[in-house]
Formats: sequence, C-alpha cells, structure tokens
Amino acid sequence: MSYVLGIDGGGSKTVCILMNGSGKVLGRGEAGASNYQSIGVEAALTSIQCAVNAAVIEGLKLTDTIKIEAICFGLAGVGRSQDNEVVKNIFEELKISQFLPIHWAVSLSNIVICNDALIALVGGIGNDVGIVVAAGTGSIVFGRNSQGVTKRVGGWGYILGDEGSAYKIAVAGMQAALKSYDGREMSTRIIEDLKQHLGLSNIEDLIEVIYQRGWGVKEIAALAPIIDVAAAEGDEVANKIINEAVEELVQATSTVINAIFSPREFIEIVTTGSVWQSKCKMRERFTASIVTKFPAVKVILPRHEPAYGACLLALKKLVGEKEI
Amino acid sequence: MSYVLGIDGGGSKTVCILMNGSGKVLGRGEAGASNYQSIGVEAALTSIQCAVNAAVIEGLKLTDTIKIEAICFGLAGVGRSQDNEVVKNIFEELKISQFLPIHWAVSLSNIVICNDALIALVGGIGNDVGIVVAAGTGSIVFGRNSQGVTKRVGGWGYILGDEGSAYKIAVAGMQAALKSYDGREMSTRIIEDLKQHLGLSNIEDLIEVIYQRGWGVKEIAALAPIIDVAAAEGDEVANKIINEAVEELVQATSTVINAIFSPREFIEIVTTGSVWQSKCKMRERFTASIVTKFPAVKVILPRHEPAYGACLLALKKLVGEKEI
Repeated sequence: MSYVLGIDGGGSKTVCILMNGSGKVLGRGEAGASNYQSIGVEAALTSIQCAVNAAVIEGLKLTDTIKIEAICFGLAGVGRSQDNEVVKNIFEELKISQFLPIHWAVSLSNIVICNDALIALVGGIGNDVGIVVAAGTGSIVFGRNSQGVTKRVGGWGYILGDEGSAYKIAVAGMQAALKSYDGREMSTRIIEDLKQHLGLSNIEDLIEVIYQRGWGVKEIAALAPIIDVAAAEGDEVANKIINEAVEELVQATSTVINAIFSPREFIEIVTTGSVWQSKCKMRERFTASIVTKFPAVKVILPRHEPAYGACLLALKKLVGEKEI
Repeated sequence: MSYVLGIDGGGSKTVCILMNGSGKVLGRGEAGASNYQSIGVEAALTSIQCAVNAAVIEGLKLTDTIKIEAICFGLAGVGRSQDNEVVKNIFEELKISQFLPIHWAVSLSNIVICNDALIALVGGIGNDVGIVVAAGTGSIVFGRNSQGVTKRVGGWGYILGDEGSAYKIAVAGMQAALKSYDGREMSTRIIEDLKQHLGLSNIEDLIEVIYQRGWGVKEIAALAPIIDVAAAEGDEVANKIINEAVEELVQATSTVINAIFSPREFIEIVTTGSVWQSKCKMRERFTASIVTKFPAVKVILPRHEPAYGACLLALKKLVGEKEI
C-alpha cells in the first residue's frame, strides 16, 4: 500500500495528515508554526518533524509499515524558486531525522511544494478547481481553473494589503473610534467597547496598548470581533467598516473570476479564515454581493482542512491523473 | 541679564536655543533624538545635554556668565502627568552634569513641559494663538485660542491614525500599486516608479523590501515623494491619494477651528513638516480648500523653528505676561 503526507505549514501551527492511496486518512498531527521566513529554517523543521511524527504514530496503530511515495508541503509565503530549494532541504533533513519505521520512497517529481492558498482551495472544495477566499489575520483570494491556470489577488501582508482581513477591520475600527473621539467623525460605540475590552479608563491609552506593549499583527487582529459585534448590534460606523471589508473581498474575488473563469461558469468559492465566523453576517453579505455579480457561483464552507488538500495534491502525483 | 533655554526634542533630533530676556537668540545647538519613550531616558538625557552644551558654548562667546531663569521642554509624545516627573528628573540630571559656567536659577514654576506641537505652533506663528498643521512622517493638528484653550486632532501614530502624513501617503501608494498589479484597480505609474527607486525587477519583491529588510516607519515614509512626483506629473491614482491626504488634513484642521475658534475669526495656520515640500502643490490644495470653508484664515509658513517657540514659552514665564 502507498501512502502520502500532506503538510499545512502556517504562521501559528503546522498540520500533517497521513493518507493512503485510496484517499483514506490514517493519521493526523499538529505542531507549532513552520513559516521559516519568519521563524527560521531550524524551528520550521522541528514543527514539521513533530507534526509528521504525530500523524505517522497514529497511522502505525492501523498498519505495520508505512511507505511514503509522495509528499505535499503547502506553506505560507512559499512561491519563489529559492523557496523550493529551502523546502527540499527541509525534506532531506526530515528523512534523516525520522526514527519511526517509515519507508521513504518519494521520487523528486513526487514532492509538491506550493502556497498554503492552493492546499486551502483543494481541501476546501475537494478538488483543484475553484476559488478560495481566505480572510483571517491576513487575506488572499486564490483561484485555479480547469486548465490549471491560477490567479492570486491580495496576500500582500498587513502593511501593503490584506484588505478585508481581521487586522484591517480592527485597525479601521480603532481609527474610526479615535476620529470620533477627536470630533472628526460621527460617534460610535466602538470607543466604549474598546475601553471595556482593554480595561482602559481613557481611549487615549490605546496609544500605550498598541505601540508600547509590543503588540503584533495577531494581537491587533484579535480586536476585530469588537467591531463585528458592534456592527451586528447596529452601530453605523462599525457597519460601514464591515461593508467596506466585504466589498474589498468581493472586488478581489471578482478580479480572480474575470481573470481565469468565464462569467457564467459554475464556480465553487470556499471561504476560510476567522473573519467568516462574523456575528454580523459578513459571509451572507459577501455571498449576496458576489452572487448578484456572478449568478452561477456557489459559496461553500470548507469540505476538508488544508492539510487534507495537501494530501490530495500528493495523491494526484501518485496516481498521475488529472482528476483527483 | 536673564536667559532662557528652549528645547525641541523629537524622534530624530534635539534642538536647543539660548535666548536672552529681550528675546534675542544668543546660541543654538543640535543633537540626536530625545524621545525617551522610544530610546530611553539615558539616551534622551545625553541628547539634551549635548544640545544645551552647544547652545551655551555659542552664547559664551557673547557674554561671560549665563543665568538661566526659565526653561521649556517641548517633547514629542509628552502630555501625561507621569511625563512631567520624567522630564523634571531629566532637568535635575542636566543641572548636575553641566560643567559650563551656567548659573541655574530656575524656580519650579519656570519649568515648562509641553508637547512638541505647542512649541511648533508658538515658533511657527510667533505667538501662542493659532493652529499648527504638522505633516511629516506622522501628522497632528493642534490649536490654541486667545483664552488659552487648546485642541488636538490626530497624532495617534502610524497604526491608529497619522492621516495625511508621509507614511500614510507612501503606504496608500504601495497599496494602490499592488491593487493595480493584481488587476483590481486602474493602472498607475507608481508601480514602475517604485521598481526603479528600489531597484526591483518585479513589484512582488516589494514584500521583501517592506517586511524582511527591517524597514521602519521612517524608511516607508521616505517613499512618499514617489507618489508626490507621480501626482505632479499627472498620474490619476497618485492624485487621488494626494487629494485624500489633503482632505484628511483639511478635515482635522476644520475640527480644531470648529472646536475652539469662531467661524469668522482671523486665525493664522502654520504648516510644518516634510509633506508640505510637495511637488504636486499639496500646500496650495490645502490652502484653497481650507480658505473656501473658513475665509478669514491665513495659511503661513513657519516664522521661526519650534525651539524658538520653546524659548518664547519660557520667556513668558519669566516676564509673567499674557502677551509674548
């Protein structure tokens, strides 16, 4: 029996799934971050080792020997040719460092290295045609058509882009609150909500929270639900921010559709990321807007997780077929 | 003869001016940054010591003994009560550590500690009534009326605000360039201008420049002239960004006028900061827009530098008069 490994390596965690040649999941493991561009190759390797170990140990409860014939690394920020070399070296280290009864039989052509957006698309839809609209701490829209042509829009990070992301919603909410406090714009309950959530006696102390406590993108993005709840409960300023975020995601999705699909084509669009757990119906607003523009599209929830998508891409190498 | 010291302490340099009781400048010194919230109290103290030393040494060429009777610290980010304690301690250290023939005769009530916006206002206008519109790396609008009531709008820093600043213009330019590259928005020459300026073969490499080279707010803000020049030479996207920046500054200024001045009152508005050196006539756009809304205002260039304003505030303590 052949096996494949699918690895979803991100900025907060790494997931590995072990799948057999028939598409059955035999093991799953989780570990820490593996975006080596931020945390370094050594730390990324450790996370990947741990996630693979956990998945294989689970699989060994069901079978004696595991012969890995294909592997897919779906990693955040990967895309350029130098990345391929780094990931191939990580794979070599991974093979050497494993003390589990794994039989490595992965030919060079059976190593898939791709962006985390592609594995989210394949996992989310269950095949490799469609669009993923990922909106978590950051945001990216990524599509692939039936000819294999891909198109990415966004994904430029928190300074250069990430429109519609939790980070951008949180920042827009804080900016609106301070403009309101200054007397520049209409009043909003976001001021009081932020004060309460952060335990501030004065909204001016937001400066200390944001600039002096060493807060990063994730800590700021985690404030997005405050704006979301305010919008859900009717705050006009919050609703304007949410609508702008939705329209940014609609515009990015429309750009992908126009670039690689026909306007009347049936396309599945899968939404992933924390932003879609919105209380103020961001997903419904998004769906209503995109379906008005492209009546043949269908917005779905993820059918599987990204690491499962990575397995499908590895499996596709193994069976050598177009359809998975 | 009495003397005063005026200190302008900012994030990139510190300026000290020595003035006599008649308002004549006798010395001027410059040193490094002194925003102690970022660089620490020790480093800030060193910069202030050096700037004071240089000003006093210049003054000693003209007079034998210097009796300092009042001092004004105009420091970036200062405003809260705990700041006053820190600055007073800095002053105590300053007095102990000076080996120049200075006679310190500053009573507690003759120490002025204020925000850098106030000294920019007083220096720029030459008295303490009016509005300063500061737009450099960051932005803030600060006004003071003839009753001494002050109003600040903006100044919330690069994440929470700084609308109309060089940082915000640069970021908006890069975002627009990448949206254009994605196919989301109309084309702009900013893409080619950024590539040329930064020596990039592909605009996607902007990610590496911004996130991996350790660039800070100042390095990003230094890209603003690229958008400014593109606007001056007719680029539509760049002009939209510049107009939005101008309107943010007009809105902030209008909020200050409405808060503490009468709509038809004669008010001098002084513009300070690198943004106003714009090639695409940002200052003219700002003036045209604000004068349309408030016909009695007059937009002026700074008459003196902020450290001179600090001296005027110190001098006011000395003479104990309302008018300076």
